[in-house]
Amino acid sequence: MNFASDNTAPVRPEIMAALAAANHGTVGSYGADPLTAHMRARLAAVFGTALAAHPVATGTAANALALATLVRPYGAVICAEEAHIATDECGAPEFYMGGAKLVTLPSPDGKIRPAQIDAAMARARDGGIHHVLPEAVSITQATEWGTVYAPDEVAAIAAACRAHGLKLHMDGARFANAVAHLGCTPAAASWQAGVDVLSFGATKNGALAAEAVIFFDPALAEGFERRRKRAGQLWSKFRFLSAQLDAYLADDLWLHVAAHANRMATRLGDGLACVPGVRVIQTVQANEVFVAMPAALIASLHEEGAHFYEWIDVPGVDAPVVRLVTAHSTTEAEVAQFLALAATAKQKAAA
Amino acid sequence: MNFASDNTAPVRPEIMAALAAANHGTVGSYGADPLTAHMRARLAAVFGTALAAHPVATGTAANALALATLVRPYGAVICAEEAHIATDECGAPEFYMGGAKLVTLPSPDGKIRPAQIDAAMARARDGGIHHVLPEAVSITQATEWGTVYAPDEVAAIAAACRAHGLKLHMDGARFANAVAHLGCTPAAASWQAGVDVLSFGATKNGALAAEAVIFFDPALAEGFERRRKRAGQLWSKFRFLSAQLDAYLADDLWLHVAAHANRMATRLGDGLACVPGVRVIQTVQANEVFVAMPAALIASLHEEGAHFYEWIDVPGVDAPVVRLVTAHSTTEAEVAQFLALAATAKQKAAA
Amino acid sequence: MNFASDNTAPVRPEIMAALAAANHGTVGSYGADPLTAHMRARLAAVFGTALAAHPVATGTAANALALATLVRPYGAVICAEEAHIATDECGAPEFYMGGAKLVTLPSPDGKIRPAQIDAAMARARDGGIHHVLPEAVSITQATEWGTVYAPDEVAAIAAACRAHGLKLHMDGARFANAVAHLGCTPAAASWQAGVDVLSFGATKNGALAAEAVIFFDPALAEGFERRRKRAGQLWSKFRFLSAQLDAYLADDLWLHVAAHANRMATRLGDGLACVPGVRVIQTVQANEVFVAMPAALIASLHEEGAHFYEWIDVPGVDAPVVRLVTAHSTTEAEVAQFLALAATAKQKAAA
Amino acid sequence: MNFASDNTAPVRPEIMAALAAANHGTVGSYGADPLTAHMRARLAAVFGTALAAHPVATGTAANALALATLVRPYGAVICAEEAHIATDECGAPEFYMGGAKLVTLPSPDGKIRPAQIDAAMARARDGGIHHVLPEAVSITQATEWGTVYAPDEVAAIAAACRAHGLKLHMDGARFANAVAHLGCTPAAASWQAGVDVLSFGATKNGALAAEAVIFFDPALAEGFERRRKRAGQLWSKFRFLSAQLDAYLADDLWLHVAAHANRMATRLGDGLACVPGVRVIQTVQANEVFVAMPAALIASLHEEGAHFYEWIDVPGVDAPVVRLVTAHSTTEAEVAQFLALAATAKQKAAA
Repeated sequence: MNFASDNTAPVRPEIMAALAAANHGTVGSYGADPLTAHMRARLAAVFGTALAAHPVATGTAANALALATLVRPYGAVICAEEAHIATDECGAPEFYMGGAKLVTLPSPDGKIRPAQIDAAMARARDGGIHHVLPEAVSITQATEWGTVYAPDEVAAIAAACRAHGLKLHMDGARFANAVAHLGCTPAAASWQAGVDVLSFGATKNGALAAEAVIFFDPALAEGFERRRKRAGQLWSKFRFLSAQLDAYLADDLWLHVAAHANRMATRLGDGLACVPGVRVIQTVQANEVFVAMPAALIASLHEEGAHFYEWIDVPGVDAPVVRLVTAHSTTEAEVAQFLALAATAKQKAAA
Repeated sequence: MNFASDNTAPVRPEIMAALAAANHGTVGSYGADPLTAHMRARLAAVFGTALAAHPVATGTAANALALATLVRPYGAVICAEEAHIATDECGAPEFYMGGAKLVTLPSPDGKIRPAQIDAAMARARDGGIHHVLPEAVSITQATEWGTVYAPDEVAAIAAACRAHGLKLHMDGARFANAVAHLGCTPAAASWQAGVDVLSFGATKNGALAAEAVIFFDPALAEGFERRRKRAGQLWSKFRFLSAQLDAYLADDLWLHVAAHANRMATRLGDGLACVPGVRVIQTVQANEVFVAMPAALIASLHEEGAHFYEWIDVPGVDAPVVRLVTAHSTTEAEVAQFLALAATAKQKAAA
Repeated sequence: MNFASDNTAPVRPEIMAALAAANHGTVGSYGADPLTAHMRARLAAVFGTALAAHPVATGTAANALALATLVRPYGAVICAEEAHIATDECGAPEFYMGGAKLVTLPSPDGKIRPAQIDAAMARARDGGIHHVLPEAVSITQATEWGTVYAPDEVAAIAAACRAHGLKLHMDGARFANAVAHLGCTPAAASWQAGVDVLSFGATKNGALAAEAVIFFDPALAEGFERRRKRAGQLWSKFRFLSAQLDAYLADDLWLHVAAHANRMATRLGDGLACVPGVRVIQTVQANEVFVAMPAALIASLHEEGAHFYEWIDVPGVDAPVVRLVTAHSTTEAEVAQFLALAATAKQKAAA
Repeated sequence: MNFASDNTAPVRPEIMAALAAANHGTVGSYGADPLTAHMRARLAAVFGTALAAHPVATGTAANALALATLVRPYGAVICAEEAHIATDECGAPEFYMGGAKLVTLPSPDGKIRPAQIDAAMARARDGGIHHVLPEAVSITQATEWGTVYAPDEVAAIAAACRAHGLKLHMDGARFANAVAHLGCTPAAASWQAGVDVLSFGATKNGALAAEAVIFFDPALAEGFERRRKRAGQLWSKFRFLSAQLDAYLADDLWLHVAAHANRMATRLGDGLACVPGVRVIQTVQANEVFVAMPAALIASLHEEGAHFYEWIDVPGVDAPVVRLVTAHSTTEAEVAQFLALAATAKQKAAA
């Protein structure tokens, strides 16, 4: 019962097989190989548009490189207060952007709203050259609170961005889970809604170490390859990055396994909602469940061998909050076992 | 016949098998897994000393992170003019160090000498605070010209470093080839000779994407983990970095395959030395062969399907220079075929 | 009636005279001149301790250089939400620190409290290497809201800093006004209270362009001179920086003129407090007055030629807030005129 | 007899008077004052073209900010090996550009040639994304060896720049001396010859601390003001920067005093050329004289109280080389005294 993070999960067998299959003979390094071309074509087909796609090994690298491409060192990025780029990347965006700042906005459900962008831009403009001027907005899909932006919510943010001359970046570490939840096309969830650059995640959803930075306007990617190289993010044996992404996309593997993870999360959320004293505090839409539960229950679950994290304190919630994350490899049995433990532990505590 | 680079080679089967073997169940992410601990212990055993070892995916990342740890933004690094860090990393060291400079020294055989370090330091000190003051020296082992520093050559450089308050970094992208050539212990080639930090390469010699930054004084590694994280170089599914290195070290695999690559290079060099009009311009010690040959021969070899690069112009050599690199996967048949082609092409040209 | 900022004021005649007096013959450049040595000795005498003092031309440079000396690129600085370094320096601290972040704390009166530091550090530590770890705290004296930290308030913050391994920086752009208000020694307001590094401001209080970065532990200044040089902040004709500071300190000029500015602010605050419909929203302690007043009154005062800024919206205050700043050159007549206008305009509006 | 540097000289009385004249009443800060507008108009008139001009206090700041505006962090700047930006700014360009590199070219007389730019670009392009790609060329006028580019030499460099998509920056720390030597218009020496951005120096030639970054295509200045602010280079009491430049330009003061300095240098060079055993090793065109002289003569001159620097070793010159710099304040008497000492000392040594 490991619900600590989707990155504790193993690699999908299909992807591991693709790595083995790619391991024959010599091929051009640094992306000059046929598999990379194949993967790029597949990405373009999946998104139904021409695009520039550049794989890297980590989500932090994808986000930081994407933002550095969009924002000058004297600029800034608007994002949610709990955005991964703001809290969990140890300053990677600032490093890659050459010191540009993040302007963070409060967001109880992980989403930011167009009016917040308007207000942030008004304040920035007020300050003239003494303030940093944002040049991009970054949203996370699915969000850090496990919620999912509807395409029209993204479109409204994109409209605000255009009005203020901002580019729109989407941190899609869990983009697959979001699309699986929405049931829309990848295009509808991204460029058709106005996203300029997408960090297209695969690692959390079954890859070994692979993400792609996707520029829907290839002209925006100018300079990206040198940035990636000087960041030490350009693999020499590039075929093994491409092989992962290629297998990830084949036969909609990415969406099938994300849908499975989502189902496991929903089941977990629904089950916990029935445990007395436990409260699901965010709508479960992707593969994360945020639950307020008594400290004694947490301790008891940990004792029984369940892995998960206590999360940050949530204003207005007086119990500790935990985060449970499901993955492609989460089984129904694990979920059932966890729910049974929660019910039992609760009863024990009550007895 | 691909002699373009050792990074066009596939992954060693033993390492691919280790990846598959590691792909079971959930484990702690970001290095909190048993395999990582095992790999660390193995590295310490191989080097015969306590050390701090931090894996990353690329050699550029290893070098840039190592140097950023040793040098302040207002400092500098002394290295050879043709050092990989100076010419082939698109400014990665400068990026990671926050703008610190490289002070490059001419080096016809890829090695730098203690007297050059003394001279560079004298000039830097002369300039007072108007000049950057070097804080580290970086040497490449095996060098970019395929030569290998003897341990006492390294020790002499290390003595100069200590005299000037400089740390000594070794770019060991081909450290395995160097040790295999020297026939000494890894310790003798590194910390016992005075190396402070080693970029221990594995990718070129059979891994998929894995290098380790090794600090022989663990105190020097302070802050390294945050630097790696903010560089987007911390894998979440860390076990797959560690699995590569663990298998690489097991049963001296790294040295066996490097020795094979070296043998292939020697055979190639010896064979080419017998082709009239061809001149081997650097002593072949590791897995690279630098050869001056007529343009017509180069064209003919390329036509026959041999892959290799024309190199930079070499002062005093009036023919074009090519670089031939062998790898763990280079076969005797490939070498024989290439030599036969060279002999034949030459005869043809002569006829 | 210019209350827009103390930087709209002219230079004190004593300081202008010192510049002219220094303008004879050739002297060593970059600080190798007798006047610089004299100024340094005077600073040490004024603070009653050995110190390392490095002049620069702007407050932003002083702050950014000071923080870059204290904090590594992967670190962070804790400060108040409205700190000048966070809102009015266009990202200078981030630029100089190489991308390190500011962690901002809410502060309705411009001061931060030890408990806030404790909480910020707890959260940072929770995040492990995924979060930036603060290495310094920066407080502003007098604060951005015109309030003044008492020495024991600073000492309490310094104690929290020591407990968490943080250095304490004081942005003293208006340090003179604070000391004049407190009536204590400069030592009591700085190093004796635990301040490690002080940005000692002079420009706002009568200099032309001069601040000093003062390290009370000279060992902390290591590398500072190279940092200043590579920031383009090292004046070649250095005597003209030193002449300003020397004259500023002579005969306690700095304190006399700051006391005058403070008196003018108090008079302004007291006078405005008597105008119906006007509310002074921060205790007036230094040379800034923050007042809530009706929009019509603001418009009327602007029309009559008074210069001052509307400030940011203040939670809980439903009228617009304006900031009035006095300077060494503010006259009693100007204050009286402004108060008379305020009273009249109010009556007019009421009529 | 101070020939150490033109920055040991005092401020021109006209400029000191302008500072005093500007010191009346309150004015808008950060450049929003009438004097700044006046200075800008004067600069445009002097150069005979619309331009964007931004004053800063030091030449290093001017150069570093100019280059950061032209070059992306993954780019590079081509310049001469002994360029001030490469050797005397402690890495300021690299810091401001976010880690971009300098590509230095050998230049025995301080000038670079178009063919060198072609060769540097060819090599950079060869390296693909593994090499930094230069985006600008920086030349120094007058050069670090006291020589002056003729307008057609600049035009030839500019043509090479255009052919390679490079911008052309001119470090004009001694631009006045160059123009005074050339006898052409400032326009002919700058934008008409193809210069995109000029660091227009004033400090060495009589100002207190003032340079202007001049963009001849104002569109190139985009973002400059935020860069200057975040560099801590934006003076609050901006009128005192503008006052210096305004007085510097009035009545061609800048050219008159530069012509004087040049005359003093020529006289010094001509005189020294007649001293047996002394050799002037660079054509004297601006206000610097480079002379090879016996170590005993150097010692003797220093003993007699003459200030000047020994310079770097010059290949092919087996005596020590010294640099003598004249300034606006250098008197004929000083020059005569120095020449007399040199003649006498020589005789003494011979006796």
